[in-house]
Amino acid sequence: MESLRWREGILEILDQTRLPLTIEYVQSSDYLAVANAIKSMQVRGAPAIGSAAAFGYAMGAREHQNLPREQFLAEMQEVKQVLASTRPTAVNLFWALDRMEKKLLEVSHLQPAEIADILLEEAKAIHQEDLELNRRMGEYGQQLIPSGARILTHCNAGALATAGFGTALGVIRAAHAAGKQVQVYADETRPLLQGARLTAFELMQDGIPVTLITDNMAGYLMRRGMVDLVIVGADRITANGDVANKIGTYGLAVLAKENKIPFYVAAPYSTVDLTLASGDDIPIEERDPREITHICGQRIAPEGVKVFNPAFDITPNYLIDAIITEKGIIRKPYKVNLQKTYGEGAK
Amino acid sequence: MESLRWREGILEILDQTRLPLTIEYVQSSDYLAVANAIKSMQVRGAPAIGSAAAFGYAMGAREHQNLPREQFLAEMQEVKQVLASTRPTAVNLFWALDRMEKKLLEVSHLQPAEIADILLEEAKAIHQEDLELNRRMGEYGQQLIPSGARILTHCNAGALATAGFGTALGVIRAAHAAGKQVQVYADETRPLLQGARLTAFELMQDGIPVTLITDNMAGYLMRRGMVDLVIVGADRITANGDVANKIGTYGLAVLAKENKIPFYVAAPYSTVDLTLASGDDIPIEERDPREITHICGQRIAPEGVKVFNPAFDITPNYLIDAIITEKGIIRKPYKVNLQKTYGEGAK
Repeated sequence: MESLRWREGILEILDQTRLPLTIEYVQSSDYLAVANAIKSMQVRGAPAIGSAAAFGYAMGAREHQNLPREQFLAEMQEVKQVLASTRPTAVNLFWALDRMEKKLLEVSHLQPAEIADILLEEAKAIHQEDLELNRRMGEYGQQLIPSGARILTHCNAGALATAGFGTALGVIRAAHAAGKQVQVYADETRPLLQGARLTAFELMQDGIPVTLITDNMAGYLMRRGMVDLVIVGADRITANGDVANKIGTYGLAVLAKENKIPFYVAAPYSTVDLTLASGDDIPIEERDPREITHICGQRIAPEGVKVFNPAFDITPNYLIDAIITEKGIIRKPYKVNLQKTYGEGAK
Repeated sequence: MESLRWREGILEILDQTRLPLTIEYVQSSDYLAVANAIKSMQVRGAPAIGSAAAFGYAMGAREHQNLPREQFLAEMQEVKQVLASTRPTAVNLFWALDRMEKKLLEVSHLQPAEIADILLEEAKAIHQEDLELNRRMGEYGQQLIPSGARILTHCNAGALATAGFGTALGVIRAAHAAGKQVQVYADETRPLLQGARLTAFELMQDGIPVTLITDNMAGYLMRRGMVDLVIVGADRITANGDVANKIGTYGLAVLAKENKIPFYVAAPYSTVDLTLASGDDIPIEERDPREITHICGQRIAPEGVKVFNPAFDITPNYLIDAIITEKGIIRKPYKVNLQKTYGEGAK
């Protein structure tokens, strides 16, 4: 099942808010529709957001291709800004838009219609590349997974969060494919239940044993010796190795440390943001209180209750045993090793 | 709002599964109905379960009061067993039933109808006493609460979990009554959402500022310096000071330690079980997977998904800064100080 697919000028987005009960692709025929799909989390997961934004940018170019070049270029700044304002935390969104804009500037001497074609190819390349990165990450990461491992994961860092295969779930899939008999505990991941709705669904489809728990059960399992390692995805990794990821990740990392359980993060280079020194600099998105007060459209909390709804948290570098990337396993000290792997001059 | 009330031979139980949207008392006219109300969590919270079971025991005596004494006494063993089999973790249930049985044995030379009257008085005494214990606990506990404190709590250890006032929320109420300007973060407490449905509701009714969060947000708040202390109730406290409480409590305690935030437990003597050496000996109830796969009757997880649903966890003594009781604040070493307070020969 693909999170996104391009069909004759239309971006088809699998509506993840309705999974697993309803499998439906919504059709976006302009960039504003793509922006709305990102904002409403019909498409979610840092790499998938990046892909969707890239397609949105290319669609914006097509929408404006009949304008004179100067006006076209001005409109493209607006397109970029609208897409960039959808979600603040995952850096893949900005990375993808920057890459698209860079391509635009490279070919800005061409006719807008030609530029639009080139941008569409670039979006397709970003999407295709993500799938390849995930497979490579899976191969590196599965070397960390012992046979028989009981793995805890949080939120959904799977095929649905990416162009396919997944980051954290990609590593699990690669371990499973290597015959390692892994089993997975999936945190349900309130408020939007990506673990219950998406991760459990994906793993069941692949025949990988999965057990669903509520977020607050993870500590109990760790203390009872039921978890051998934790692996999660990431929405942004700063220069010092701090990781922004779905709310609750930090708590898991602290519990893993307390119980001497390895804690791994899997993410491609598009998630690494060397421009920020530490996680303190990452903006944390706060979302609609209704995500907490209502489930399936039904109110579960008292009318008028005050709510705090941060969508992400920061896991400080010292709690992370390794970062799994498409270039291999990165270990402490992250500041040095991330720079070596991804900084200027790195191959 | 009372969790239980006795009205002319009927135990009226506030149906907590339907709060806050529906406020309804269900009427139990026999002990089996009381047992079902405990099992289905229409009444929940360790002290309230103890009170309900005591009333159930008295009702069982009345139902069998026309039997010959020997048969009556045999039936009362059955009554006790049925009520005791409802929920395994909170010790208050067994404590209350043991106290009722002790009273029965004291007066077993009387006619069953007279015994039934005496048992009803004993149940009323247990219920009334719980309210007084909570007020005393509140007075001791509030001395630990600085003015302006931002307090995190989990599940519902309030009036609804007790005969009134509450244990953890009793301490918060006492601090509020003392003019301390406290504010509360309430974990929603999956799967049954006692925090969202009951704690938020109780505090809003009392005009104590409360903000609702999901369970997995607690760590983020602590790390951001938004929490000054954590206070929770307990379902059983063993001789060494280990605490069984609602699933997720252990995780909060670990996060509090990591962030150097005091972690307090409030519970009356009926929660202390000196017969068990440590938390490893406490049976942990596992409940229906449907509590996790469905919310408000609607399926939220894939059909056929495997679920693990432990209702409680164990917080080891070293993570607990103090236990607040009706006899004062108990600190480490708990093994010595619990024995001194509640062991044989203690006043």
